[in-house]
Amino acid sequence: MDKVNKGCFITIEGTEGVGKSTNVEFIRQYLADKGIDLRLTREPGGTPLAEEIRELLLKPREEVVCDDAEILLVFAARAQHVDQVIKPTLEKGGWVLSDRFTDATFAYQGAGRGISWNRIQQLEQYVLGDLRPDLTILLDIPVEEGMARVMQRGEPDRFEREKLDFFDKVRQGYHHRLRAEPDRFALIDASQSLQGVQRQIAAALAEKLDIV
Amino acid sequence: MDKVNKGCFITIEGTEGVGKSTNVEFIRQYLADKGIDLRLTREPGGTPLAEEIRELLLKPREEVVCDDAEILLVFAARAQHVDQVIKPTLEKGGWVLSDRFTDATFAYQGAGRGISWNRIQQLEQYVLGDLRPDLTILLDIPVEEGMARVMQRGEPDRFEREKLDFFDKVRQGYHHRLRAEPDRFALIDASQSLQGVQRQIAAALAEKLDIV
Repeated sequence: MDKVNKGCFITIEGTEGVGKSTNVEFIRQYLADKGIDLRLTREPGGTPLAEEIRELLLKPREEVVCDDAEILLVFAARAQHVDQVIKPTLEKGGWVLSDRFTDATFAYQGAGRGISWNRIQQLEQYVLGDLRPDLTILLDIPVEEGMARVMQRGEPDRFEREKLDFFDKVRQGYHHRLRAEPDRFALIDASQSLQGVQRQIAAALAEKLDIV
Repeated sequence: MDKVNKGCFITIEGTEGVGKSTNVEFIRQYLADKGIDLRLTREPGGTPLAEEIRELLLKPREEVVCDDAEILLVFAARAQHVDQVIKPTLEKGGWVLSDRFTDATFAYQGAGRGISWNRIQQLEQYVLGDLRPDLTILLDIPVEEGMARVMQRGEPDRFEREKLDFFDKVRQGYHHRLRAEPDRFALIDASQSLQGVQRQIAAALAEKLDIV
């Protein structure tokens, strides 16, 4: 698989405090060293409108947000992100790395909140058609370890306020996705040292994307 | 059809400047005189979150909003509105009048923007299941007349900035909905005097909802 001249869509996923930000920067630098310019983006967000939708989703609020409203907001942001950023970049042969994508919806809204995967799949099909990531890097860590890191970061958002039990379901959701599509995923043990984590990521990029 | 003790869901629709606000108040007063307490609400909006989504939709912005993002935002607001306001009120036997509902999506996003009705129907089914208004009052006016009224109201929002041609398509979209479900609709000629309009509305309420 030689993706270098065709555009490549990478996503990075994981529960809270798993170290996505640090490792996104590592991936950007690793690919830059190979002469590949990576467009970094994130979900929910990635465009001004999608970032405003992200604010609506993350803001702690007294009103109970019903499942359908939450998932439709997630996919509204995703539709805009795909239309304005991801597709145009891929069509020009560029590389995109998104911090979270649809797997996060299956993990958080699906496994976490209990929205049926069938309902998520309907919206996935509606918005994405057959667009899927070429590679998904799943950073995996025991939930307690991740939350201990998050709690050092300050005021938690609406998702971070959930209980450990919720994040454990989210983690199981990610593993479910991994088992369903093992070829697309690279599972990274993120409880190792930073050096160990980055060694695993570099190996996964090299192997899955045939980078020399 | 005796709806008085079972809850009743009325919507009011029409293009810009057709006089919805004035006539909503007339309907509220008309039903109050019959001993019916009407819960007034509107779309997009009707809950704090849904009103925030409305702001995102109406705000003029440089970013091109893709069709899917727009329609998913509309239905996200609708899901929350139905879950928090419309269903709970109807389930308690109450009456609801919503200033716009799904017919507006078919008219504005469908006929106006050219999103296929099939795609709107998919989301209608997804969010509403079999919930439909009991009565839809369609205020109808030649587009030029309505826009002349709007232009006296001050700074136009993102929808009001559209051209006459757009609103003409929207009006045709409403007529298309009316022809598909004539029993649900009351067509009101809104270019008459206010008294004439309100006489028509009172007659429609009396006839369609069996109010004495």
